[in-house]
Amino acid sequence: MSYYKKLEQHARKLSRLDHLSAICGWDQAAMMPSGGAEARSEAMAELAVISHELSTAPYLEEWFASAEKENLTDEQRVSLAALKRQWMMHNILPAELVEQKSLLGSQCEHAWRTQRPANDWEGFKKNLEPVVELARQEAAIRSKATGLSLYDALLDLYEPGMTTEVLDRIFADVKTWLPQLIQDVQNKQQAESIEPLTSTFPIEQQKALSLNVMKLLNFDFDHGRLDISTHPFCGGVPTDVRITTRYDEADFTSALMGVIHETGHARYEQGLPKQWRDLPVGQARSMGIHESQSLFFEMQLSRNVDFAQQLAPLAQQTFGRGSDTALTAENINAINTRVKPGYIRVDADEVTYPAHVILRYEIERDLIERKIEVTDIPVIWDEKMQAYLGIDTKGNFKDGCMQDIHWTDGSFGYFPSYTLGAMYAAQFMAAMKQTVDVKSAITSGDLSPVFAWLEANVWSKGCTLSTDELVKQATGETLNPKYFQAHLNSRYL
Amino acid sequence: MSYYKKLEQHARKLSRLDHLSAICGWDQAAMMPSGGAEARSEAMAELAVISHELSTAPYLEEWFASAEKENLTDEQRVSLAALKRQWMMHNILPAELVEQKSLLGSQCEHAWRTQRPANDWEGFKKNLEPVVELARQEAAIRSKATGLSLYDALLDLYEPGMTTEVLDRIFADVKTWLPQLIQDVQNKQQAESIEPLTSTFPIEQQKALSLNVMKLLNFDFDHGRLDISTHPFCGGVPTDVRITTRYDEADFTSALMGVIHETGHARYEQGLPKQWRDLPVGQARSMGIHESQSLFFEMQLSRNVDFAQQLAPLAQQTFGRGSDTALTAENINAINTRVKPGYIRVDADEVTYPAHVILRYEIERDLIERKIEVTDIPVIWDEKMQAYLGIDTKGNFKDGCMQDIHWTDGSFGYFPSYTLGAMYAAQFMAAMKQTVDVKSAITSGDLSPVFAWLEANVWSKGCTLSTDELVKQATGETLNPKYFQAHLNSRYL
Repeated sequence: MSYYKKLEQHARKLSRLDHLSAICGWDQAAMMPSGGAEARSEAMAELAVISHELSTAPYLEEWFASAEKENLTDEQRVSLAALKRQWMMHNILPAELVEQKSLLGSQCEHAWRTQRPANDWEGFKKNLEPVVELARQEAAIRSKATGLSLYDALLDLYEPGMTTEVLDRIFADVKTWLPQLIQDVQNKQQAESIEPLTSTFPIEQQKALSLNVMKLLNFDFDHGRLDISTHPFCGGVPTDVRITTRYDEADFTSALMGVIHETGHARYEQGLPKQWRDLPVGQARSMGIHESQSLFFEMQLSRNVDFAQQLAPLAQQTFGRGSDTALTAENINAINTRVKPGYIRVDADEVTYPAHVILRYEIERDLIERKIEVTDIPVIWDEKMQAYLGIDTKGNFKDGCMQDIHWTDGSFGYFPSYTLGAMYAAQFMAAMKQTVDVKSAITSGDLSPVFAWLEANVWSKGCTLSTDELVKQATGETLNPKYFQAHLNSRYL
Repeated sequence: MSYYKKLEQHARKLSRLDHLSAICGWDQAAMMPSGGAEARSEAMAELAVISHELSTAPYLEEWFASAEKENLTDEQRVSLAALKRQWMMHNILPAELVEQKSLLGSQCEHAWRTQRPANDWEGFKKNLEPVVELARQEAAIRSKATGLSLYDALLDLYEPGMTTEVLDRIFADVKTWLPQLIQDVQNKQQAESIEPLTSTFPIEQQKALSLNVMKLLNFDFDHGRLDISTHPFCGGVPTDVRITTRYDEADFTSALMGVIHETGHARYEQGLPKQWRDLPVGQARSMGIHESQSLFFEMQLSRNVDFAQQLAPLAQQTFGRGSDTALTAENINAINTRVKPGYIRVDADEVTYPAHVILRYEIERDLIERKIEVTDIPVIWDEKMQAYLGIDTKGNFKDGCMQDIHWTDGSFGYFPSYTLGAMYAAQFMAAMKQTVDVKSAITSGDLSPVFAWLEANVWSKGCTLSTDELVKQATGETLNPKYFQAHLNSRYL
């Protein structure tokens, strides 16, 4: 057997273990009773150890060296590069640092769960400082191995190819127009009235509505399910994608738009190239491209009055509220497009969301580059919230710099993906509209032309192209934030 | 670290992989969409390979030899024996035979799924013959390694300590009184009328009733769940026991009694000794003892008019049928205790069930001992069905010798566990009644004294005692089928 084939076989083995981990992880969040937690953690940790041993097996170095000398097809060469990247990612960090990171991260996250509600910044700071220090060490090691700058070496984990230089430029541009746009949209929306949702929307009915909307979005129920979890996510494996939501009985739009978002993630996974299943080259391109699909579904496709025309009758029927004036298409759309600056990122609307991300990006970049320290975070957080959103967060740590879980376990470099996703989504939509009549597709209720475009240009590509190349082939140019700006202006002004 | 401790650690590792396999297996049966099957099988097979490699690691032989020379506590010595038994079970068979068994078993089972409905005995026979031949080889190898007779060496996989000699004696005894008892009960029941169930019992309501009855049976919902699957089972792990049922909208008693049965299995698992979690010595004693717990719950505890007094008001309330004369305690009990010989084992009542088991035992024993051949099965099956149950099965293979899945994958030696379980259950109940007022516990709705007895005498013992010793400590004597006979006589005559 060729060394390339041996590496493929090895990767498939790892992927199969990831499969079990993904299903048991989903089960943990969506099905497992509380008393099962301890033994489950132990079982998952055992699998992680086995996976890690396989990923770092000493013979792999020779296999890669030999495979690179083999006579491979172009496709195999791309696949080999993806295999090698995955291998290097697993092998860059010394085992002690991985262990230390897992330990300090768990401790910080565990403490955060009580320190956040207690608004205990001083307590949290003590746990966060060693996590940041370790992330800096990780950045230094990754930087040395990859030749990237410190922060870029972390960014590379989630957005291969993206750099601080590009982000700084793009976000600087956004900052020139976003604060004013937020003001303008708020002024405009002051004149618009929203009929508030009343009474309750039973969970069983919300679930039925969610399933109907997933059908409208061509979710493949032969290869996936919808369930409930505290924190909604898209998990499982491409052949069996598990999405979750949580239901608020007072507001059906929250779960509904969440389900549409996760359905975007799910259809990307379901649409990944089957011939590369279980291999790195067959996986999703990056976190930003993944988010571009969820945001394409949620923001580009669904938060407009045409789509609300599809949602409204479904909602009216499901809840048996044919004459509820809050459930008209216009009112649902007004709810879905309301802009209001707030403290909390995960509750933010499409327009204010980038401000939350840019703020976090600027702080974490400077933390990793040792330009600021953990103790400086609250003051900087407050200054930026004032500047970008006009919000005072002084002394309110729990709704300020302590609100997110990301930093607690050392996931620095992840935040930019959210806004990159929003930008890619807008750019994909603009390109799609050149060949697809999206409005007609929405109003007809047959969205297949939309999905055919995404499948051809994004999903089926897996990881065969760089992000830049994928976006260029799909839209004619690399990332250009003007499409996002144009989208916001057109929808909200 | 001592070798004993190393062996413990090794066993915990295996147990944690079994945990993931159990949860993913449950998911496969209860949650997974059909399109996930192929990748799931591959993932499960990968885990099985890793488990097998660990179970048969060459260094274990030396570890066991060294551990046996160590200074161990009595408890550790018992644990070491259980560890060694598990290790030997994994190592007796050559890898090729294990592979061959899995392959031929899958083929036979797969073909059986279409051959059975087609009543295609000739086709099925061709697949079953090599499965039986391999089982004979397996029996020979196991016999040589254990010193047991051919069939006993297979029986030992499910009922360690049980022998053909004991079974022959016990079943010979049963055959002296069972056919007549079946006749007598039928004659008696002819005079009793049953009010048939009418209309439908919605699944959601049946589920609510099941959950209520599980609460009555003290199922620990912090450590388990109830779901739906085609073939009901009790799976998961002791800290997180997953039971399943299937609902028949025309007959709520079928799912309900099934849930009670699985709850018996589940409480055994939930009650296993926590200090031995993840070690063989902390596992259930045997298949027969496991079945004794499910049958204790289903048959001993629940199929009587006192328990029906508890069920009836719950059923009436749940289904909103306070005045349905079919839902009185007396009628529910009449349904639950109806005796009628039939073709199908899994549909059989408590009285006729042993006849199905004895028939299968006698055939599989003689097959393994090469006294008969596969081609002889239908004639023998028919003779025995005529003799034990007065039923003609000539030419009706699908409801005759092709009805069970057990032989298709070579699980010879399993069938006796069902009737051993029924006998142990009757013996446990007789012993329990000497110190526990079971009738009062049932009528009061507080069954905790019943469960306290089972926990003290069965569940908490795990695998620390042999089956004989467990039963002797619990009831004062080893297996004695007279309790089962007395139970049937007292309930049905």
